[in-house]
Amino acid sequence: MGQNLILNAADHGFTVCAYNRTTSKVDRFLENEAKGKPIVGAHSVEEFCAKLKRPRRIMLLVMAGKPVDQFIESLLPHLEEGDIIIDGGNSHFPDSNRRTKYLAEKGIRFVGSGVSGGEEGARYGPSLMPGGNEEAWPYIKDVFQSIAAKSDGEACCDWVGDEGAGHFVKMVHNGIEYGDMQLICEAYDILKRGLGLKGKEIADVFAEWNKGVLDSFLIEITRDILYYNDEDGTPLVEKILDKAGQKGTGKWTAVNALDLGMPVTLIGEAVFSRCLSAIKDERIRASGLLNGPTPEFDGDKQAFIKDLEQALYASKIISYAQGFMLIQEAAREYGWKLNKPSIALMWRGGCIIRSVFLKDITNAYRNNPDLENLLFDDFFNKAIHNAQQGWRNVVSKGALWGIPTPAFSTALSFFDGYRTRDLPANLLQAQRDYFGAHTFRIKPEHASETYPEGKDIHVNWTGRGGNVSASTYIV
Amino acid sequence: MGQNLILNAADHGFTVCAYNRTTSKVDRFLENEAKGKPIVGAHSVEEFCAKLKRPRRIMLLVMAGKPVDQFIESLLPHLEEGDIIIDGGNSHFPDSNRRTKYLAEKGIRFVGSGVSGGEEGARYGPSLMPGGNEEAWPYIKDVFQSIAAKSDGEACCDWVGDEGAGHFVKMVHNGIEYGDMQLICEAYDILKRGLGLKGKEIADVFAEWNKGVLDSFLIEITRDILYYNDEDGTPLVEKILDKAGQKGTGKWTAVNALDLGMPVTLIGEAVFSRCLSAIKDERIRASGLLNGPTPEFDGDKQAFIKDLEQALYASKIISYAQGFMLIQEAAREYGWKLNKPSIALMWRGGCIIRSVFLKDITNAYRNNPDLENLLFDDFFNKAIHNAQQGWRNVVSKGALWGIPTPAFSTALSFFDGYRTRDLPANLLQAQRDYFGAHTFRIKPEHASETYPEGKDIHVNWTGRGGNVSASTYIV
Repeated sequence: MGQNLILNAADHGFTVCAYNRTTSKVDRFLENEAKGKPIVGAHSVEEFCAKLKRPRRIMLLVMAGKPVDQFIESLLPHLEEGDIIIDGGNSHFPDSNRRTKYLAEKGIRFVGSGVSGGEEGARYGPSLMPGGNEEAWPYIKDVFQSIAAKSDGEACCDWVGDEGAGHFVKMVHNGIEYGDMQLICEAYDILKRGLGLKGKEIADVFAEWNKGVLDSFLIEITRDILYYNDEDGTPLVEKILDKAGQKGTGKWTAVNALDLGMPVTLIGEAVFSRCLSAIKDERIRASGLLNGPTPEFDGDKQAFIKDLEQALYASKIISYAQGFMLIQEAAREYGWKLNKPSIALMWRGGCIIRSVFLKDITNAYRNNPDLENLLFDDFFNKAIHNAQQGWRNVVSKGALWGIPTPAFSTALSFFDGYRTRDLPANLLQAQRDYFGAHTFRIKPEHASETYPEGKDIHVNWTGRGGNVSASTYIV
Repeated sequence: MGQNLILNAADHGFTVCAYNRTTSKVDRFLENEAKGKPIVGAHSVEEFCAKLKRPRRIMLLVMAGKPVDQFIESLLPHLEEGDIIIDGGNSHFPDSNRRTKYLAEKGIRFVGSGVSGGEEGARYGPSLMPGGNEEAWPYIKDVFQSIAAKSDGEACCDWVGDEGAGHFVKMVHNGIEYGDMQLICEAYDILKRGLGLKGKEIADVFAEWNKGVLDSFLIEITRDILYYNDEDGTPLVEKILDKAGQKGTGKWTAVNALDLGMPVTLIGEAVFSRCLSAIKDERIRASGLLNGPTPEFDGDKQAFIKDLEQALYASKIISYAQGFMLIQEAAREYGWKLNKPSIALMWRGGCIIRSVFLKDITNAYRNNPDLENLLFDDFFNKAIHNAQQGWRNVVSKGALWGIPTPAFSTALSFFDGYRTRDLPANLLQAQRDYFGAHTFRIKPEHASETYPEGKDIHVNWTGRGGNVSASTYIV
């Protein structure tokens, strides 16, 4: 990753100094990939810092966590006021909050930058999401926007916001990536087990989808993967163990959603789906003890594949709407000014979730930067209404067939809950008041003298519980 | 809560000393509710500690968080080695881990105890879930099991385990409570909006359900709530604002599930449903911009109500199975010996989730304490297979009607995923290897010389990406 970013910057005319604690790696790099490019090397932190012009701009690509702090400490003795440290790893945003403050006190400008796009992105144009000490931005803007991916001529990189805002937005990006991947897996499972398609037939569907509204990097690589045959002429993917890991940024996004009280259900289900995949041995035992229906399809397959495309599209709209709800709430809660059109632009190219879709999101937020919810934008409003019937068919059929659709289903439940004026949480509030005297409020349209609007009300539901509401504690 | 616990203990022949920082509350309590009972009061911490016989057994019922630590500090100067401090509040289990260790170093035995049952439970028999320093148990066992609820003659209280295990189990209890409440809300919503039932008709359904497999405290109070009419003769519940709070133990359970990598999806959806309910103003705006189908029902209503009962029952089985999966994983991860039959027994009476159902769970774990999963128990295995068709009908209809069923749906997706030998996570692993060279493993049945079992494999999917797998970082 680091090597590729260096090569990328060098190709854009920047002179870069490379350093790695394993100095043999530096030498090998200089003698091979870096040869003939404006790249110099350093064999110690001291030498490294001495070779940089001021203010120094140092980008770290080390494992998130303690290694970042350790490396920062090793740099500090060799830095001067105004120097810039950029953490390009997958750090958790609270760490970047902390580091921004800690280094600002020492006169060092810290930037925590999300970097997405994998090895190839790093080499030829990643998505970059820098945040932290804004004083650093003028000094790094040029190189960042030069090496970043371009989408319709615009760099997929802009200043995100204060403190850990860059790593926060990268975290949400990764959460959305988890969601997109889960949605694709559910579609693939339905094509395979629900419609009984095989190998190339499934790949052909994704190839077709990649020409329409779902056109994106992840659909494209899914197509490639499904076309990739093993030596025996059958798809390699079918031989791959169905155990996925999760301990990273997807989980952080779900936890953050819970912390901020935002219903980011699709990412939550995507993370839990990975957890379920991971207990494969237990699933094997369960598969012998728990039976379900046998999927049978006797309708129009092509029509159902269109429904499935709509289910995937609509669920994806919900997932991004939820992601931007989280971003919006984070901005409010943490006091960050987050620029939604810029965020959408940063995700349009270079990164794993890059897609035609994100161009529409960029447009939505450019048309109205104060857009309350993506579903309120004309384009997406129309899109989700068009997709609705197919989506409902797929979720309904999945339930009857016994094929799990946790992400499609939760997206639909969210949509139906979100557009419901009166949810059944009134009953829930009554229950809480009944057993715990937690009180409730009255709907404004039903306010009365007995039950005034905006007041915490307790009712003695049984005639036994008494009129004391819960709040008193005695030691 | 504290007052009621004191009265409860006094009724069982224990002499109790009451203290509250607001000493007027102590006086008022002594002159009223406590009159004629073996209850004495104290007006200072010093006096309070002086009045207790050794080893002192002190139970705190203060707000979780700093107040607990502050109160512990105020007690310490007046305590002696071997004294026992019991925290009966809703503390987060990591705090109880910490306090157990901290106080053990000072020779004080700490107990963190879950207490459930609300005001009435506290007075006439709560569910008590004590954990912490096991040396304390012989000294508190008698009073705890005396004041606890009884189920078929057995006390709903037993030693849970080391450190914060008691508060952990209480946290999972509360998470399950969130889930049960959400399931009831979804059933109520379907009865109301899907089948078009009104007021008393809905209450009658819950009254009927409370005589069958769903017989439980929460169904019972739901029945009572639905029968409760306002002065104008219409159900009060319909006037209650549908905004539910969540910042507590339900959220902790979901976060813990994510941390431990356990797919506790139903509690997750229950928490997120509360989050969605909370943004009522936005939902009102959304309800004007987002349309869905109009539910129409022309089938056999009574048959569908039976389906709905099955959906509720099956989803509940899944939720408890998930809860015990989390408990099992916590025992492994934290090195606690958690006794599953005892936990089920503690939840059988006194607490909010008490039910006939928990008797069946107790039996399941008594029959086989090493039961890997509740769904593998004969009784529940049969139960969920019987409930399956109705459950699928309800989820399918909810999707077509546009009535959100996040908890019913996620439970069904979990069931279908859990019993699936080959999930689509194989594709997900291929994607991760494609874009990030994260490697994958091969299914044992497809292992070959090229793709050996148990090895991390990277494939050059496109011929472009190279054969280097991701793990190298350069600064």
